[in-house]
Formats: sequence, structure tokens, C-alpha cells
Amino acid sequence: MAGNLQVRVAGRPTGIPQAEHFAIVDGDVPAVGAGEILVRNLFLSVEPAMRGWLADRSNYADPIAIGSVMRALAVAEVIESRASGFARGDRVLGWFGWQVFAAAGPAAVIRTIGDPDLPPSLALGVLGLNGVTALLGLEKVGRPVVGETVVVSTAAGAVGSAVGQIAKRLGCRTVGIAGGAEKVAICREEFGYDAAIDYRAPGFEAALAAACPRGADVYFDNTAGPISDAVHRHLALNARIVICGTASVASWDPAPAGPRVERTLLTRRASMGGFVVLDHMDEFNAASARLAQWVREGKLNYREEIVDGIEHCPDAIADLYAGRNFGKRLIRLEKRA
Amino acid sequence: MAGNLQVRVAGRPTGIPQAEHFAIVDGDVPAVGAGEILVRNLFLSVEPAMRGWLADRSNYADPIAIGSVMRALAVAEVIESRASGFARGDRVLGWFGWQVFAAAGPAAVIRTIGDPDLPPSLALGVLGLNGVTALLGLEKVGRPVVGETVVVSTAAGAVGSAVGQIAKRLGCRTVGIAGGAEKVAICREEFGYDAAIDYRAPGFEAALAAACPRGADVYFDNTAGPISDAVHRHLALNARIVICGTASVASWDPAPAGPRVERTLLTRRASMGGFVVLDHMDEFNAASARLAQWVREGKLNYREEIVDGIEHCPDAIADLYAGRNFGKRLIRLEKRA
Repeated sequence: MAGNLQVRVAGRPTGIPQAEHFAIVDGDVPAVGAGEILVRNLFLSVEPAMRGWLADRSNYADPIAIGSVMRALAVAEVIESRASGFARGDRVLGWFGWQVFAAAGPAAVIRTIGDPDLPPSLALGVLGLNGVTALLGLEKVGRPVVGETVVVSTAAGAVGSAVGQIAKRLGCRTVGIAGGAEKVAICREEFGYDAAIDYRAPGFEAALAAACPRGADVYFDNTAGPISDAVHRHLALNARIVICGTASVASWDPAPAGPRVERTLLTRRASMGGFVVLDHMDEFNAASARLAQWVREGKLNYREEIVDGIEHCPDAIADLYAGRNFGKRLIRLEKRA
Repeated sequence: MAGNLQVRVAGRPTGIPQAEHFAIVDGDVPAVGAGEILVRNLFLSVEPAMRGWLADRSNYADPIAIGSVMRALAVAEVIESRASGFARGDRVLGWFGWQVFAAAGPAAVIRTIGDPDLPPSLALGVLGLNGVTALLGLEKVGRPVVGETVVVSTAAGAVGSAVGQIAKRLGCRTVGIAGGAEKVAICREEFGYDAAIDYRAPGFEAALAAACPRGADVYFDNTAGPISDAVHRHLALNARIVICGTASVASWDPAPAGPRVERTLLTRRASMGGFVVLDHMDEFNAASARLAQWVREGKLNYREEIVDGIEHCPDAIADLYAGRNFGKRLIRLEKRA
């Protein structure tokens, strides 16, 4: 019967997923089983983490099978409900994939979107995985306290921009690292960083050192690679490094070489810890509600970069890794489907 | 007046300290100031950490000045006391340096040795920095729980052998990594490791994987380098890595390259944290008392390798790094001086 455009996984990337790894297919609108809902997606999310979800090896999520619809969070409207607790017209956040229509059981739904005063798309960014990653990663692994210096890489990105603002709220000095003068300006002007540094500019490390006169107490690391090597050279005693993403590393198969970190961690009594928000989904709604309150109060700024049409999905992950986006990248699906 | 043989720092090593970096000098027996004690050293300690103390850069202890007596813990007898709380004949553990006689204020004394049933030399090993490092590093950074797998590098060494036995007491499966068949046998037979693996033997990593069927929950890392790279490939989810030493790295100036660890930490939700026992000296005596009780009960084995004569000091650190020692290396000073 067709009528359900889908982005399916057509090949398994070894590095960053490219357009060639996806195929757009006109699939069937699914039948709705007992206990399920049928949704029409309004916004599809694009995440750096999708690289990991597509990798064919032990990772933090089962790899997505070739031929299946690309795993993605989406904001959707319920078209038909055969599940208790959901009604036609409800807006929901869930694992509905890169497609127009999805049939889903309650386990795939993260929550009903209950903030009518806020744009529903925020459930995919500042109130969604990105914002919750920033808040919980900072609190659980970074553990900043008043007066500490918090350094953030990809500081203008969907996660980093929230990290910087949350750390500032906590009374920290915030130092953002971003690529290019425009993002650096956004860091300062929109996201309130006390200092923002262009890692592509000459003198990056000297600027970093000047911005952290007492060293970095917390480093929220979204990049790994040479940016992180520089930050590691300027850690304060007892520094905590949140390992959240590795945007600057093109391929982890095999892992690229870099300076060994053990002596830095030892002499600085520092720690590095990996954070994956999917481990903390039981805290997702409470965290999202805190973020929503800050957005309402005008204390948490965000940027969205919305493109129209499912045909933009296959390129979207590579675009993120190229740093071409300014804010949370979303794919909007028009109601005419 | 001379009569006080001393090992002074004669040069600053860039890597592992060698005999050429020290000079044996016949110095003066010091005068004892008010509030001080004069001690005659009985046993001098040799520590892998001495490399760090000698390094001429930001580290976890101030670098030792060229020309000064080598910093070292020693077990000593009080010869004369002008300090309250100390009497002639007391045995004390303190920072008395590589020399025969030292004058010291109370700040240099860690404790009076009050276990007459135990050899006083233990205050430098299993009841001293090594044992306390093992106990507190494991508890504070490793945090093992019953049923977990604890992997230890330099597993037959002064710190590692205690880590393995303490972890076993906590109900963990213990896997020791050591160099050579003899140390591997000691790990199994004297230190009770459930499995012990020779990192120099072919098939090291396969043996490691077989010894950790559910992965390593805790890795107590005394080596860094390729041994650690192998362990990192076999971490369990939520693994904790205690960075305690870097015995396998000849020089950190500059840091050698190795596989970047960020993705491993992220996908395993693992953490690495540096541990330096000098940060926890307020807990030293209580920890030492716990260790002493286990030694008395026959539940904590140790090895000492005692050599006689201060002339063995200059070679002693390099020997440790070459793995030539079997047990805690101590220098015994004869009473005839």
C-alpha cells in the first residue's frame, strides 16, 4: 500500500555515516496491533550518537540491522491509538525512526509532550536527549561546584551549549571551545560563556590556558582528539572529565593514537568517565521538566536548525560531524507527507 | 664531623632514575634542634614513585633539589629526642631520606611503630605506602563489590600483591598480570590470584580474555602501556580503572602515544581515576592498622627483598623498573654504620 517514506540502512559505515549508507524507500503504512499506537512523525532527530548505533561491534546500543529503518527519536502525533493512555492527537516523543508513519508499543514512547507553551520540537533537543545528556552528564560525572572552571568542547552544539549554560547557573566559570569565529561569537553572546575559543585559530592552546588561569576543574568532552589533548594539559587538581562524545575522531576502527593519559590523570588526581544518557532514562522526564522550566524563565537558550523533508536525512549525520550545523539539527516532515 | 653516609641527588633524570643520578657522600651527622629528634635509619624504602619525585615538572610532589638528600621513607630508631612524644629507642616511620642519620621535626614522622610482634620493616611495605596505596586506592577508586573481577598489573609487586589479596578478601575474582613464569607462579601460590598471566608470553591477550569471561570490573593499573591497552579491550560495563603507577612507560617527557581511550570509556561507561596515597595521609594509620591485623591473621602475604648497605640505593629504582625485584625492595643499614 506504500505511502510511508522511510530511510533505511543500506550499508554499514566504518567511520562517519554518509548518504550512501542510507536508502529512501516508499514503505507501507504499518498496521496497528493491539496495545500499539500509530503515529505520524512531525520532527525527526539527528544525533552524533547515530554513528555508534550504526557501528557493527560492541557498543552502547545494539547495532541497527541492514535494511531496517534508521533508529531515531522523533516527535510525532498519534493518529490512531489501540494503547491505553494515548489518544488521537496526542503529541509524543519516542523511538519512531526515520520514517513518516510508525506503529509503536508503549516501550518505544518516552513521554507524552505536555508543555503546550513550548515548541514540540524542543523535545528532541534542549528538552530531549541533548539537554538531558548535558544536565545529567554534568551532574553525575562532572560534579561541578561553585567557583570551578568548566571547559566544554563543541560548546555551541546541542549538548555543549546546554552544558555551558547549566554550569554557569551553578556558579561556575565557563569556557567554550568551538570551531570558527561565528560559533565562538554565538558561545559568548547566546550561551553566556565567560570565554570562548576557536580551536582552529592560531594560539588555541595559549588562549585556553589564559581562559583557565587555575586550570580546568571539569572538562565536558564532546570531541576527543587534539582538542582534548590540549585541555588535558591544563587540568586542575582533582579534575573530572566527562566523556560524552568523540566528534573529532573520524574513525575508531582502529582507535587512533594519541598521548597516553595515565600520567596526567595520576599527577592531577583526575578522572575520566564515560556518560551515556540511555543508561538514565528513568530520570529523563524529571530532568526534562527542570530544563523546560529554565527555558520558560529565559535562562536556557537553544538553537534549532530545521530542514524540511525526509530527503535530508541521509546527509544529516555527516553534516553534524563536519560542524556545518548551528544548533540542533532536525528534519521536519510536512503534514502533506 | 662526617659519619653520616648520604645518597644525594646528583642529576635530574628525564626517564627512570639511574645510578648516575645519585652520589654517595659522607655528610655530617646533623645537630638536633629544639622540637626535633635524631634518628638512625634501619631500613630505607625504594619506591617506583621516586621517579615522579625526581621529575623536574609539575607533579604530585615538589621536585627534589639537586644536591639534596634523596627523599625517602625510612624505618628508624630514635637516638636522641628533643620532641615531646618521642623517646630514645622508639622506632618510627618517617620521611628521613636515603641517609644513615636524620634530624627531623614531628611533621616528618608518620607514626611510631607500635606492632612489636611484626617486623619493623613492614612499615615500609605491606603496612606502609605500598599496602595503604593498595587498600585505599582499591576502596576509593576501584570500589569493587562481591563477585566482580579485579585485574591487577605488576600483580606480584609490593602494591599489586596486596591489591590482589584485598580484592580476594572482598569476594572478588582476582586476575594478576606479571612478567615471567616465576612471578606468575608467585601470584597464584603466595598471593592467591584466581588466575595469573605472563604478559611477556605469547597469547597474553587471549589468556587475559579467558581469565575474565565477564570482563574486568576493576583494573588496578600499575603499568600503563601495552599491558593496559590489552586490559582496556576487556573491560566490563561500568568498569573502574585505578591509575596508580606507570611502570611500563620509560619516559613521560613527552608522553608516549597509545590508542585513545575515550571511545572505550564511553561504550563501556567506564572510568579511569588517578590515585596518590600522599593525598590520604590522614587515613594512613587506620589503614595500616587494618592491614596489620590481616597480616597477623595470616590473610595478607608479602615478600620483602632486603639488600644490605646504602651503596645499593643508587641502582635500586632502575632495578624496580626493570622488574628485577621479587617483593618490596628495602635497603638495610647495618648498625655499625
